Amino acid sequence: MAKVADPYFIADPWKVIERGFNPAYARVSESVFSLSNETLGVRGYFDEGYPDSLRGSYSNGVYELEDLPRSYRGIVDKTHFMIPAADWLLTSLTLDGEALDLSAVRFTDFERVLDMRAGTLTRNFVWHTKSGKSLKLTFLRFTDMRCRERAYQRIVFEPLNFSGTVEITSGVAFNLVHEGRGICFWQGVRRSDAAVAARTRASGQEVYAAALYSAAGEPVGGELTAGLRASLTLSQGETLTFDKRAIILFDGSTGDVLWDAGEAALRATAGVTLDQALEEQRTYWAEHWRVSDIEVDPADGTGIEEQQGIRFCSFQMAQTYNGGSVRHNIGAKGLTGEAYNGHAFWDTEACCLPFYLFTNPAAAKSLLMFRYNTLEQAKNRAKMLDCEGACYPVATLNGDEACNLWQHASLQFQPSTAVAYGIWHYALVTGDKGFVAGYGAEMLIEIARFLKSRAGQDPQTGEYGYFGVMGPDEFHMMVHNNAYTNYMGKRSLSYAADVLLELPVSNPARYAELKKKTGLKDGEAESWRLIADKMALPATEEGLIEQHDGYFRLPHIDVHAIPVTEFPLYDHWSYDRIYRTDMIKQPDVLMFLYLYNSSFTPEVKKINYEFYEPRTIHESSLSPAIHSILAAELSMMEEATGFFGYATRLDLDNYNRNTREGLHTTSIAMAWVNIVYGFAGLRSDGDCLRFAPRLPSRWKKLRFSLTYQGRILELTMAQTETTFTLRQGSPVEAVIHGETQIIGPDGLTVPTP
Amino acid sequence: MAKVADPYFIADPWKVIERGFNPAYARVSESVFSLSNETLGVRGYFDEGYPDSLRGSYSNGVYELEDLPRSYRGIVDKTHFMIPAADWLLTSLTLDGEALDLSAVRFTDFERVLDMRAGTLTRNFVWHTKSGKSLKLTFLRFTDMRCRERAYQRIVFEPLNFSGTVEITSGVAFNLVHEGRGICFWQGVRRSDAAVAARTRASGQEVYAAALYSAAGEPVGGELTAGLRASLTLSQGETLTFDKRAIILFDGSTGDVLWDAGEAALRATAGVTLDQALEEQRTYWAEHWRVSDIEVDPADGTGIEEQQGIRFCSFQMAQTYNGGSVRHNIGAKGLTGEAYNGHAFWDTEACCLPFYLFTNPAAAKSLLMFRYNTLEQAKNRAKMLDCEGACYPVATLNGDEACNLWQHASLQFQPSTAVAYGIWHYALVTGDKGFVAGYGAEMLIEIARFLKSRAGQDPQTGEYGYFGVMGPDEFHMMVHNNAYTNYMGKRSLSYAADVLLELPVSNPARYAELKKKTGLKDGEAESWRLIADKMALPATEEGLIEQHDGYFRLPHIDVHAIPVTEFPLYDHWSYDRIYRTDMIKQPDVLMFLYLYNSSFTPEVKKINYEFYEPRTIHESSLSPAIHSILAAELSMMEEATGFFGYATRLDLDNYNRNTREGLHTTSIAMAWVNIVYGFAGLRSDGDCLRFAPRLPSRWKKLRFSLTYQGRILELTMAQTETTFTLRQGSPVEAVIHGETQIIGPDGLTVPTP
Repeated sequence: MAKVADPYFIADPWKVIERGFNPAYARVSESVFSLSNETLGVRGYFDEGYPDSLRGSYSNGVYELEDLPRSYRGIVDKTHFMIPAADWLLTSLTLDGEALDLSAVRFTDFERVLDMRAGTLTRNFVWHTKSGKSLKLTFLRFTDMRCRERAYQRIVFEPLNFSGTVEITSGVAFNLVHEGRGICFWQGVRRSDAAVAARTRASGQEVYAAALYSAAGEPVGGELTAGLRASLTLSQGETLTFDKRAIILFDGSTGDVLWDAGEAALRATAGVTLDQALEEQRTYWAEHWRVSDIEVDPADGTGIEEQQGIRFCSFQMAQTYNGGSVRHNIGAKGLTGEAYNGHAFWDTEACCLPFYLFTNPAAAKSLLMFRYNTLEQAKNRAKMLDCEGACYPVATLNGDEACNLWQHASLQFQPSTAVAYGIWHYALVTGDKGFVAGYGAEMLIEIARFLKSRAGQDPQTGEYGYFGVMGPDEFHMMVHNNAYTNYMGKRSLSYAADVLLELPVSNPARYAELKKKTGLKDGEAESWRLIADKMALPATEEGLIEQHDGYFRLPHIDVHAIPVTEFPLYDHWSYDRIYRTDMIKQPDVLMFLYLYNSSFTPEVKKINYEFYEPRTIHESSLSPAIHSILAAELSMMEEATGFFGYATRLDLDNYNRNTREGLHTTSIAMAWVNIVYGFAGLRSDGDCLRFAPRLPSRWKKLRFSLTYQGRILELTMAQTETTFTLRQGSPVEAVIHGETQIIGPDGLTVPTP
Repeated sequence: MAKVADPYFIADPWKVIERGFNPAYARVSESVFSLSNETLGVRGYFDEGYPDSLRGSYSNGVYELEDLPRSYRGIVDKTHFMIPAADWLLTSLTLDGEALDLSAVRFTDFERVLDMRAGTLTRNFVWHTKSGKSLKLTFLRFTDMRCRERAYQRIVFEPLNFSGTVEITSGVAFNLVHEGRGICFWQGVRRSDAAVAARTRASGQEVYAAALYSAAGEPVGGELTAGLRASLTLSQGETLTFDKRAIILFDGSTGDVLWDAGEAALRATAGVTLDQALEEQRTYWAEHWRVSDIEVDPADGTGIEEQQGIRFCSFQMAQTYNGGSVRHNIGAKGLTGEAYNGHAFWDTEACCLPFYLFTNPAAAKSLLMFRYNTLEQAKNRAKMLDCEGACYPVATLNGDEACNLWQHASLQFQPSTAVAYGIWHYALVTGDKGFVAGYGAEMLIEIARFLKSRAGQDPQTGEYGYFGVMGPDEFHMMVHNNAYTNYMGKRSLSYAADVLLELPVSNPARYAELKKKTGLKDGEAESWRLIADKMALPATEEGLIEQHDGYFRLPHIDVHAIPVTEFPLYDHWSYDRIYRTDMIKQPDVLMFLYLYNSSFTPEVKKINYEFYEPRTIHESSLSPAIHSILAAELSMMEEATGFFGYATRLDLDNYNRNTREGLHTTSIAMAWVNIVYGFAGLRSDGDCLRFAPRLPSRWKKLRFSLTYQGRILELTMAQTETTFTLRQGSPVEAVIHGETQIIGPDGLTVPTP
């Protein structure tokens, strides 16, 4: 945990501000200033270009394919990875023959602002040319949160000491290069003066890009670009505004179908001015903040920083994914960089789903629908692993397994159990039984079949378990009876049995349909329950759960004695070395104590927390939040606060020193989870919500809202008391500090125990 | 064990004969008819070419390099693999405009003969041209067992019904293509009319090839070839002989140095006729058979087949490796094919070393010197694994780790413990103490350092062990306290301590030198003994040793219930699936019970044999021999004979159906070990030899010789008695069926108990 802040941005409760440009932070800023509307994502790169830049502009779901060397059966031989798509910010400016390039020209008064209430990024500075002219430039950009194929760029020119002309070239282009592979994967398909359509080489995906410009000019472009060149006449003391309204359309179609849809979208955007779109953008974000803002008021003077950090997390989550499409999932870095190949991991269900369940349940449903729509691929993957049912991928953009490390792709089943958990959790929080009958049950059948076929039986005890697996703790591979895998398997099997044994009663028609579709046999659900009931979960008499068979007999290592220079261990230790001590990467046992919280006693939580905490090095961003939440539950507020630590400003202060590669999007979700489950003590694994607010001493106030079964519930926590306010919907029953209470129109105030 | 013979060749006690050519066996025959003199190896391909052919002509130690994708620390990022070198058999023949190609022309009376007393391959047939001519052709080839850079080709022409001319082109060439990669890796460096030198692309190795011809002709060739074209005048009823004497020189030098050495070697060969060389070849092999022949006389009528098979094994071993150079090791397929990349594995020490210890101790020493000369590379490898000392490679041609599967290269230490065992065994059998002081001790220091630094300690018992390893049983990966690794580590550490604590007494000067060279510290050897003494070897009260922690609790699988169509499992089962049951690939526990035979009681051997045998699927060729040897010791002669089974005719009858890729050279060694350790009951892990002859009922007689500390000892086993004859050297003490006996000039006959 020896991570320290590297502060650069100026604190503001609603904005992220960079004042003066420091080239050393060029790429960090690009990541932090990323914008997205779930469909389009763009890093905060300079419109006109800059040498040290990852010019990343992405369309969600666009990827390229790559063949891997064939090795053994079940090991993936084809992977896919996110590539940059259309660059809609392509701009070059020339004044008196001098091209704008902030690495080469003289400029002053540089400021860049991400406005989280407007959903915009602006940048302004004064350009002083060699010819003695001073031109103030303001760049504005945003990706449209309502019409997802739309993006806007505005450049405002203000000549400070001259009148004259500036040359501008502006356009859309498919010439961006995938940084890791050094290749542009696009081939031109069709173009007009305003538009260009291009196709990826191997995956054959097509994207249409076009723009309308507020100025007339001469068409320019090539196979992969379309745009215009114009001379803009500037008058001293007056501002001139150049607007670009871009369409980037990726809807799965190709050829004429895509082109015609793109042209139609372009015509439609002609009816909306940039100012109108900007107004709608503000409205969208106002609604977001109304439902899901978190206000904090620390006592220690870090108020603005912390407030900014928490809002930045919420802003990034909401712009990365908001349920716009069931074809999208959430990449580990969202749409802010190419690291992790744009892949979604089990982070989606493990880290992100709670945020959406309580702020945007429709988005939570869409995330589960992504899994439903990729069920066939998960079934194929199970077949490749010589198993039945469905095995969800460790890493994916499109539903296929894309992880090229067999030791992860073949041995980790947390994506599959996370989907089952997600269905269960979604149903509990939303009460949406239709989803379970319509979609969840089918996934559960296939997940349960996988979990049954993959289970093995201990010949000595007769208990079931998973042999040759890797839990979320990736520092122990090919282990037997990993407690996380076993327990999550047990609960998944038992939930699947519950659902499939109840469905014939509650919805016989749907049950009959499902039986036909899946070939579900009589007795099959009962067989899942049998395995669930006999699933091994070895523990000591005191309740200390052994992470896997033999874990307690592994050589001990004092993780605090490892020099900080040896982190991350994957870079500094021989690969095999991380696997042979009792050091863990993240806490498998604590993780399911958190997920199925009400199933375990405080004593069990305490003994396991105390045993595993000192053995954990937290090389997963999920890890500190789980510790923080359990510590809070065990009233260890100092530890809880310590583990919360940098969570909210992970990227703003570049704690991991790799924000330049993109934001830690799924980690960001854990900051929200940490606050709500940790400090408000929310538990959502029972029939009604439970709360146990415990405000860390460093905060004077914490206020946030939750969406719950059509209600909006606001919590205002202070040191001595917490007030629950029902801002929308009917009264709700909740257990607060162990007592059942009704939160009605008059609200409820409870003292901190 | 559902492997069945696919007989093709004609049985003969001293020859392998193919009568009539079956194209379906073209590649199998190429492998079986391979010749080698350790330095040069050549498959039995047709001199004039054939469409379905692996035209493999190899120079021992010639390889190419390949970069691998960089992944994690300690995982190799560069590998090397054997490539074909100079083709010295390049020949084309034309008669009346018709080119000789056995896939296209008409021919009769085809016969091919490998003569194991002469060390030659001959082929003859009658070619019937479209023009009506019949020409009898006899091809002879051999690689010179004394002058290793020399190889010979003879073609005898006998026109049966005509006189006339035949056109011949003959030469040496570097144009052979590596079959797997489809690439010729050679670039020409220098050439003359008779010679060409070429260099590999990445490894930069150079080879010189040249030939002298018995006929004059016009020089032909190109960048990579040199040879001649000649018209040979044939007279009906007379034979004409065309001889080629080739030099293929690979001595590590390059440029002018290599060229001059090659030219000198070519001049030297001019003084020796092919007939003279052939005579010397016969003499060499006569001496080989005198010292190391095995004669069998089965009672069941399989006499000639079995005799042929046993001699074929001995012949292949002796021609693949005979101690000609300490730069050579023994590839899994010798020099007979490109599968396994020409790599040597721990098979060298585990399978082959006993054969050499008792037939050619100088060669055994050379094999250990190969390890000594690559000690620095093993030390570098240990560093890459964050360990001290030396870790010998899993797969190598040059001493560097070439295995590109991290799960093997990083987790298997049997090569290192096999080297320690080899030093110990070599010293025991040869009594060569100078080797131990001069070379062995230094290797032992570094191996012990590795084994110490890699060991871990069980926090519950305080015992040492190896965590996160894979034993020879490659069906269980990342296990803890693998019994084989622990026990071999224990014995290696303890032997290293013995040697290093004794050396100051017996050879203080050498000890001082070693201390300086290796930085050996006071107390270091004692620390190895400490770990050896506290090494874990968990077993039940009855002595059943657990293969690794938790093995007894793995789900059971009935290996006999697996359909034979699912073998080999690597091709038919998902990769991860082989790792999660109690099925084992080869018997780790039985292996060290065999290696350190006298350290275990018959009861321990019995209980472990009976437990592990039914769990073993023998996907390693080492496995059946170990079972056969232990079964014989336990007087289970039926089992012993059953496991011996196909060993001697593994390749002659293509039992594994992959002989086409090359011979199973190191497996062949186990046939010898099986006979000598199994049926003669030889044990060589004590202060004197022990024997317990037990002739299987299917044999009437078994006779073989052993070289032992300057003596030649002959055993003649019959059903009722065994006769020991001292054919050379001073009397020797041996324990026979548990009784100490002296074998003197009069020999000794003991009854079978």
